[in-house]
Amino acid sequence: MPLSNQCVRFVKPAVGPVDERHFELSTSTVSAPDAGEIIVRNVYLSLDPYQRRQMMPGVVYTNPLNIGDVMVGRAIGTVVESRDPRFAVGDWALGHFGWQHYTRISATKAEKIDLDGFSPSTFLGALGSPGVTAWVGLRTIAKVRAGETVVISAATGAVGSVAGALARATGCRVVGIAGGPMKCAHAIEALGFDACVDYKSANFRDELAHATPTGIDVDFENVGGYVFDCVLERMNDFGRVALCGLVSQYNLPEPYGMRNIAEVLNRNVMLQGYRVTSFPEQRPAALRELKDVLRSGVLRPAETIDVGLAQAPAAFVRLFQGANMGKSLVRLADETI
Amino acid sequence: MPLSNQCVRFVKPAVGPVDERHFELSTSTVSAPDAGEIIVRNVYLSLDPYQRRQMMPGVVYTNPLNIGDVMVGRAIGTVVESRDPRFAVGDWALGHFGWQHYTRISATKAEKIDLDGFSPSTFLGALGSPGVTAWVGLRTIAKVRAGETVVISAATGAVGSVAGALARATGCRVVGIAGGPMKCAHAIEALGFDACVDYKSANFRDELAHATPTGIDVDFENVGGYVFDCVLERMNDFGRVALCGLVSQYNLPEPYGMRNIAEVLNRNVMLQGYRVTSFPEQRPAALRELKDVLRSGVLRPAETIDVGLAQAPAAFVRLFQGANMGKSLVRLADETI
Repeated sequence: MPLSNQCVRFVKPAVGPVDERHFELSTSTVSAPDAGEIIVRNVYLSLDPYQRRQMMPGVVYTNPLNIGDVMVGRAIGTVVESRDPRFAVGDWALGHFGWQHYTRISATKAEKIDLDGFSPSTFLGALGSPGVTAWVGLRTIAKVRAGETVVISAATGAVGSVAGALARATGCRVVGIAGGPMKCAHAIEALGFDACVDYKSANFRDELAHATPTGIDVDFENVGGYVFDCVLERMNDFGRVALCGLVSQYNLPEPYGMRNIAEVLNRNVMLQGYRVTSFPEQRPAALRELKDVLRSGVLRPAETIDVGLAQAPAAFVRLFQGANMGKSLVRLADETI
Repeated sequence: MPLSNQCVRFVKPAVGPVDERHFELSTSTVSAPDAGEIIVRNVYLSLDPYQRRQMMPGVVYTNPLNIGDVMVGRAIGTVVESRDPRFAVGDWALGHFGWQHYTRISATKAEKIDLDGFSPSTFLGALGSPGVTAWVGLRTIAKVRAGETVVISAATGAVGSVAGALARATGCRVVGIAGGPMKCAHAIEALGFDACVDYKSANFRDELAHATPTGIDVDFENVGGYVFDCVLERMNDFGRVALCGLVSQYNLPEPYGMRNIAEVLNRNVMLQGYRVTSFPEQRPAALRELKDVLRSGVLRPAETIDVGLAQAPAAFVRLFQGANMGKSLVRLADETI
């Protein structure tokens, strides 16, 4: 008997600010799995800035998102039917399951998760793509070293908070950039940043200079725009920029014009853009260290959890208003069946 | 008896277009060298875009240039007096000798040059800082490989023409960017570029796409601005940008706002700014290969030579109008004493 399903579809390409009208809640049914397939009951859905990029018209991306498609996103859930020997009913599975309650998918496209003492949502955050993204940016791209000054924008976000913990574990001076005094206080008090500068402050540029008296060796860039331009002015000779995201830009109809590219030239700065999916070979080493910093308590990631699939569009829109703290998730079902 | 000397002084900081009013011809005398010093009679003076950067107010540079100073620049000449055992009268010497006929300087700041069958001017071009700059950008920064598509802006300039020859010797498809049909023809016919796109064309963006049908693996960037933005759109996954210069920018009162930094993020692009003076350890290997490509005829560098110190300001101004071909030099004296 087919399962009754609910999903959120992407119905309008997004240029400029994204709002709830880009999404539509709809119902469908999920028929029984074919051989080699499983059905996952999604428990946590991950909301990430990269999903906004896929909503742009004409963007080239690994998995294209077309009008009418179920909205893309990673999720973790439990297997409720299996016609593949790799998965048993009750196993935890993770994958690009989309914004829906149930996902019928080839078992080859799902990853079996051993919770290993961690909560399921952690595998969408610090032990998921955001955590590995933070690790690859600091270790593989920026090759951060003890004693260096590391600046991390979107410091209280899912990626930034993990990057902060890793930089601290390396022995760096860690300076966050975040929006508003509450987030800045959270970065220092809960996440262990040495300082955190409010990009909404009228004196942001001066305050950043004050917080980085010996300049910046590594910039973990999540934001872009004017904030990034100000960071480039403070880069030291042979500094590195891990360009991980440009969240300030995705909702703009036209991109901000970067004015300080000459700083990259003048001071031998290395700037590398990267997508974590292009570095799959780094994942095992990343997960080993991430589990260590979680177990030792160096990293205590925050989560913002909305409950119910119908909340997903509004929660996603808030992601670009800087309103969420830590990893943004939607809980679709109870963790225990 | 002191030598009567002529020099060109820097008399006005430059914001916006540079013109001859930033310079002043003046006379001085050069007294006898102290122990450890030499006097060089400058034969060729090098004009380079980096000198324009030093004329900006407030710019941080290795050798600051102050109002009233003799204008900075490398020169090659012959030693006319020596109080240092490393130099004999008649030796060729190269250094930051400035825009003047005679330079009294510590022998430690001059390099003795064995012409080794090359003309003296070559040591300011293909075997000088521009040549080593091209080599470091392609070999050390971009790590160019056979079969890749390499784009080189300011293709007919002192650096670009050497970079083109090196990329060709590596087995790359080499696409130049230059201003006007004459320079583009020169790049293809005399310098061996596979194609050359005119950035002054109204269809520059489309023509660049047409000339790079499989995208761009390496960008050797000398120009910046809109040209650079168009190149970024064509970069392949894991492409590299050796950011060597931004000559389109030095004369602007405000920098062009770069709009395509997201392309760096979306396609794992590595962008490294560099100053050749920060890579002194690369010089011996660079000079070995550069001598080879010169001797084999793979590289036949063009020069634009103005005669007489009084011509230096006008020749320098022309450098930013895209009016010169190849290495820009001023001849101050005959090569033979």
